[in-house]
Amino acid sequence: MSDDRDPGTRRRGFLTGVAGVVGALGAASAASAKENISPVAVATAGKDILPFHGLHQNGIATPMQGHAYFATFDLVTEKRADIVSLMKVWTTAAARLTTGETAQPLDAGLKPAVAPPAGGRYDASYLTPAAGKAGGEGGETLGQPPTGLGDTQGPNAVAADSGESLGQSPAKLTITFGFGAGLFVKDGKDRYGLAARRPAALVDLPKFVGDQLVEGSTGGDLLVQACADDPQVVFHAVRQLARLAEGVAQIRWAQTGFVPGFGNGETPRNLMGFKDGTNNPAITDPKAMDEFVWVGTEGPDWMRGGTYAVTRRIRIALERWDQMKVAFQEETVGRHKYSGAPIGKDKEFDAFDFDAKDKDGNPLTAENSHVRLAAPATNDGAQILRRGYSYNDGVNLTAERWPPWRQGLEYDAGLFFVCYQRDPRTGFIKVFERMAKFDMMNQFVTHVGSGLFACPPGAAADRYIGQALFETA
Amino acid sequence: MSDDRDPGTRRRGFLTGVAGVVGALGAASAASAKENISPVAVATAGKDILPFHGLHQNGIATPMQGHAYFATFDLVTEKRADIVSLMKVWTTAAARLTTGETAQPLDAGLKPAVAPPAGGRYDASYLTPAAGKAGGEGGETLGQPPTGLGDTQGPNAVAADSGESLGQSPAKLTITFGFGAGLFVKDGKDRYGLAARRPAALVDLPKFVGDQLVEGSTGGDLLVQACADDPQVVFHAVRQLARLAEGVAQIRWAQTGFVPGFGNGETPRNLMGFKDGTNNPAITDPKAMDEFVWVGTEGPDWMRGGTYAVTRRIRIALERWDQMKVAFQEETVGRHKYSGAPIGKDKEFDAFDFDAKDKDGNPLTAENSHVRLAAPATNDGAQILRRGYSYNDGVNLTAERWPPWRQGLEYDAGLFFVCYQRDPRTGFIKVFERMAKFDMMNQFVTHVGSGLFACPPGAAADRYIGQALFETA
Repeated sequence: MSDDRDPGTRRRGFLTGVAGVVGALGAASAASAKENISPVAVATAGKDILPFHGLHQNGIATPMQGHAYFATFDLVTEKRADIVSLMKVWTTAAARLTTGETAQPLDAGLKPAVAPPAGGRYDASYLTPAAGKAGGEGGETLGQPPTGLGDTQGPNAVAADSGESLGQSPAKLTITFGFGAGLFVKDGKDRYGLAARRPAALVDLPKFVGDQLVEGSTGGDLLVQACADDPQVVFHAVRQLARLAEGVAQIRWAQTGFVPGFGNGETPRNLMGFKDGTNNPAITDPKAMDEFVWVGTEGPDWMRGGTYAVTRRIRIALERWDQMKVAFQEETVGRHKYSGAPIGKDKEFDAFDFDAKDKDGNPLTAENSHVRLAAPATNDGAQILRRGYSYNDGVNLTAERWPPWRQGLEYDAGLFFVCYQRDPRTGFIKVFERMAKFDMMNQFVTHVGSGLFACPPGAAADRYIGQALFETA
Repeated sequence: MSDDRDPGTRRRGFLTGVAGVVGALGAASAASAKENISPVAVATAGKDILPFHGLHQNGIATPMQGHAYFATFDLVTEKRADIVSLMKVWTTAAARLTTGETAQPLDAGLKPAVAPPAGGRYDASYLTPAAGKAGGEGGETLGQPPTGLGDTQGPNAVAADSGESLGQSPAKLTITFGFGAGLFVKDGKDRYGLAARRPAALVDLPKFVGDQLVEGSTGGDLLVQACADDPQVVFHAVRQLARLAEGVAQIRWAQTGFVPGFGNGETPRNLMGFKDGTNNPAITDPKAMDEFVWVGTEGPDWMRGGTYAVTRRIRIALERWDQMKVAFQEETVGRHKYSGAPIGKDKEFDAFDFDAKDKDGNPLTAENSHVRLAAPATNDGAQILRRGYSYNDGVNLTAERWPPWRQGLEYDAGLFFVCYQRDPRTGFIKVFERMAKFDMMNQFVTHVGSGLFACPPGAAADRYIGQALFETA
C-alpha cells in the first residue's frame, strides 16, 4: 500500500470507469486498464498462485480449493482510523500471502495495524519464575526470560510471521474479506460513523424455523475466508491476519472445512454421501455471475462488483442418517445417491422434471424433497452460488429425552454452508425460508451458526479492500 | 475372513515362524511365505494404495500422509465373542477401505459386527409426525416415514457404506488398530478374561508434571488411526468402522490432524514454525525399527511384531508463542527456526554438539531446551518414532487471572503427538518424565489428552488383527 498516491482520485477513477459500462455485462466485467487490474480467475505464472488483486475478490467465483479456514472478528477499537489501518495492513498481507510470501517481510519485525503499547507487547515479568504461574505446574522450571521484548524492529524483534508455511507453495490460496452489520451499527450505536452507508441488502437475518444458533458460531463484524489446497496454508493465513489485528479486532469464531479431492470437474460428495453443487450457477459464465452474484448499480457505490456471503454452520445427524435406507435418503434429497441423477433420471446433469408422476399418480420427486424446494424453478428463478465446505470437529455424546431414548455418539460434523448472492433478500433468505419449514432434510440437519457479510469488490494493486466505503466523500 | 479354516493352526504356524528367526533382525523381518504375508511399505500396483496386510500394521513405519483421524472406542459389550466379531469385521472392512472399496459390499445391506435387535435398528415410530420431536421445530413437516427399516439385507436395507468416498482414490489410506488397558482390566474388573494377557509394557501412564488431562480426550479401550492424503477418506473410514461397531463399542473421543504438503522428503514444520521430526529414527532402516519400534521376544507372543502407541493432545499457546522473539523461540527449541539446524550449526541434519559453549562459557544449546532433553544422547540412547499431526479445532476465549490479566483469543490448536515404541517404559515415559519437569517449551504447551495402546502385529490376508490375543490356547 503506498500512501503517497491520492486515494480519492484513484477511487473516483475506478468507480467512474465501472459505472460507465454497467450494462450488458454489469459492473463485473468493466476491466479498467487505467487501474491496472487483472481480472480474477486468470492465474499468474506459478500455477499454484491465484491473483489477489482484481475487480472482484477472489475465493468467490473461484473453483473450490480443498481446504478452508473461516474466521470472524469482533471490532474492539473505538476508532474508525484503526479499522482503516487494519484493512490496509490486511490487504497488503493478504496479497503477499497468496503469492507464498510471509505476511510481512521477515527481517523487519512485526508491524501490526496499530502500534503496541509503550514498554513492549508483553510485560517481560510475565515470563520470570517470580511471576510463578506462567508455566502451570511446570512454571518452576522456566528458562531464562527473554530480554528486549519491547523491541518492535530489528533482529531482536518479534518475528513478522509465525513461519509454519515457510518453503511451502501457496497452494492456490485465496483470502476474502467481508463486513458484518456490526461495522455499521452495533447495539443501536453508530460506532464508526458508517451507519448511513450500510447497504439495504445487509439486513439482519430473520430467525428461521428450526434455527438453534450458538452465539459462538454466529455473527462477527469482519469475515476472513481463507481457502487453499493445504490445511496449514489456510491456518497460517488466518493466524497472521489475527496477529496483525491485535488491538483492533479479535477472533470471534473460527471454522475449518474441507472438500474431498475428486477428479477433474467431478462434483464432490458431501458427508451425506450425495453429490453436492450439481445445480450451481456456472462460475465460468460471467453473465450468470453478474446476474446472481455480483452487486450492480442497485447497490451502494462501494459494493458494486462485490457480493453478500451467508454462512451457516449446519450440523448433520450422520449417526441417524446412516441408519436410513438409501431409498429414503434419495426421497429426502430428491436425487439418486450413487449417480447423482434426479429421481427417475440416469445422469447427474439430466434436467429435473418436477411434474413427473409414478404409476400411482404421486410425484416422482417428493414435494418436500430438498432439491425441489431449493430449485430455481420453484423459487421464481432465484439462484445462489453455493461454496460450502464439510467440517469434522469430532464427536459429542448425547442422551435423548424422547423415545426411543437413544444414547450415544453424536458427530460434531456436517456442512459449513457458504453461499454468495447479489442480494440475500432475493437469494438465501427467499430460498431458505420455505426450506426451513418444509424440507424433509430438516429431520437430519440443525443450523447452529449463522452470518451475513457484505464482501466489497476487489482492490487494485495500489488500493485496499473496502477503501471506497471508508473514504467516500 | 474365511471362518472355515483352522485359526489355531494358522496362528501357531505364524508365531512359530516368527519365533524361529528373532535374532539379528528381530521379529519384524520374519517374512513367512507360508502365511502369504506381503511386507508392508511395498506398495501395490495402484500408487495410491498401501497394503493393509503384512507382518506389521501399516500407518506406523509408513511415510506420513497429509491427514489423520484418530478415534478411541469404549467397549459397551460384556461378551468377549462380540469383540472377536468386531475385530473380524473391522479387519475385513479396513482391508477393503485401504483399496478404495466400500467398507462392505454396497448391495448386501449393512452387516454390523453384532446383529441389530429384532424389529429393526431403529424404531420407525421415531420418524412419524406423531412422535413429534424428531425434527425439532421443523418436525411438523416430516415427510413420509421410511418403511421396512427392519430389513437388514436386500435393496430395502440400510446401505453398507455411507458413500461419501465413492469414486475417490484411497489416497494412501492406512488403518491401524490398538488395544487400551481397558480391554484387559477396567475398574479392577477382568471383563473379558484377558487380564492375564495384558503385556507388562501396557502400563497405566504416570501423571506427568503439568498434565491437565481432559477425560473426553483421554483413554479408550480400542484405538483406530486412519491416515490418508485426503480428509474425507479418513473421516469416511472411521465413520464406517464406528457403524460396524454398534452394540459392541462406541466412540469415546476423536481427533483430526494434518501435516502440510511439503516437497519430497522435506521435514514438515509444526505450528510453532519449526521443522519437526528431523531427529526421528529412519523408517527406511529395518534395524532401527526393530531396535526401537517393533516388539521382539521380550513381549508376549501376541505382541511380537507389534508396537505401543502413545497419544498426547498437546495444546500450544500459539497466541503467546507468536509474541516471543525468534531468538528466544530458538533457545527454547534448541534449533534455528528457519534452517532447522542445531544452534550454532548451518544445516538441518548437522549433528548436535551439546558440549559447545558460547564466548562467555555458557552452553550454546540451553540446558533446558527441548531438543537437548529429548535427544537420545541425554536419554541413554532411548528413541521413539514420532508421527504426530498438527490439529486446529478453532478458538476459545480466555481470561487469565494473573498478571498481566490477559484476555482474548486462545487457539484450540497444537500437536496431536503420536509416538510408537517397543516399550513405553523405556520410550515415551523415560524421555518425557524429565521433559515434563524441565523443558522450556512447557511455558507454551499443555498436555490435555493422553492414551497408551498396544498395537498388535499385522495380519495375514486370512487372519484378523489381534487374533493371537483372543485365540491363544
